[in-house]
Amino acid sequence: MVVDEALVSALEAELKRAMTGSDAAHDLHHCRRVFANALEIAGLQGAGREDILCAAAYLHDLVNVPKDSPDRHRASTLSAEAAVPILRKLSFSAEDIAAVCHAIEAHSFSAGMEPQKLEAQILQDADRLESLGALGIARTFYIAGKMDSELFAADDPFAMRRPLDDKRYAVDHFFKKLLKLPATMKTSAGRQLAEKRVALLNDFLEDLAGELRIS
Amino acid sequence: MVVDEALVSALEAELKRAMTGSDAAHDLHHCRRVFANALEIAGLQGAGREDILCAAAYLHDLVNVPKDSPDRHRASTLSAEAAVPILRKLSFSAEDIAAVCHAIEAHSFSAGMEPQKLEAQILQDADRLESLGALGIARTFYIAGKMDSELFAADDPFAMRRPLDDKRYAVDHFFKKLLKLPATMKTSAGRQLAEKRVALLNDFLEDLAGELRIS
Repeated sequence: MVVDEALVSALEAELKRAMTGSDAAHDLHHCRRVFANALEIAGLQGAGREDILCAAAYLHDLVNVPKDSPDRHRASTLSAEAAVPILRKLSFSAEDIAAVCHAIEAHSFSAGMEPQKLEAQILQDADRLESLGALGIARTFYIAGKMDSELFAADDPFAMRRPLDDKRYAVDHFFKKLLKLPATMKTSAGRQLAEKRVALLNDFLEDLAGELRIS
Repeated sequence: MVVDEALVSALEAELKRAMTGSDAAHDLHHCRRVFANALEIAGLQGAGREDILCAAAYLHDLVNVPKDSPDRHRASTLSAEAAVPILRKLSFSAEDIAAVCHAIEAHSFSAGMEPQKLEAQILQDADRLESLGALGIARTFYIAGKMDSELFAADDPFAMRRPLDDKRYAVDHFFKKLLKLPATMKTSAGRQLAEKRVALLNDFLEDLAGELRIS
């Protein structure tokens, strides 16, 4: 797929303008990776419009709502709304604006909305890939440190004799959520990429079990 | 090597009594893993006294000094001093107490002291193994989250065009410290185990580079 560099530059400029706070750089790079994931999925599927995917990837997290806010589930709707004037400015047609906004709105878990169109399905898969693989491992433990939860339950790290509690233990998050992600993927290419990244998580957990002397 | 279960139980009981704070459980499990590592190294070397290793492993972190305290470099000396009455109570001879205390005192980086005796070298290697492998990956990102540093430098994650800064970026800690640990190992068995665990770190970094599209 040929990437429209002018569109990418315009979207990055709009994003830098619209996003505020110290996390701006981070989010731009997340958007770039999600776009790269989306292109990879579209390439494997042999379908999906690149301009829609590009706009959706760059604008999908336009409005940040903190994790503990009661408005958290509305973040993707707010991002879709905030994307409209930007897309108009970039001369997207009304139909294409609707497609981008649907993809943005439906991408997140907390929205609880099914992505209907192919580009929306690809965006959701592309975003979920970011929770898996080496990046997913890094992020899981990083967030656990930030949230002051524990690495693992010292007496039973793999929850063989207790219910899972991923608010308390980082390792529980693998079993509670991450290992289940491939089954939620909407495209076959997305599922295939997710399974490759989940294999890394399983290898990691096996190595950890060895080091903790769990057999 | 046959583990003296009575000695292990006595040391665990003493440790639980002597350690305070919410981190107690964690530290006990760390001690158990360091002892298991020490036994593995001693087994591969075919040398090293099990009772000295057991006492040194369980008591090596007896006195905790916070990472940012000016007394941090004295933690292992303070732990060795605090170990003496416990070792006397457990009927260790004066000579063996000296051997355990030397191992405890010399085990840490910040003490800046060379371990002279085999058991002291084994303890240091056993403790350093904990920084590597899956556990090392988990811990590096966890501590980065706790310390509010960043996962990696978004513009140059692998520091190809900037100096390393592992206070600011978690990924930098691999290059600044962890990958260099095998070379600091004192026993050949310790080095061999460290190299196996460093191979996991290198695999992880390679996977991360792929996901971040760094070639």
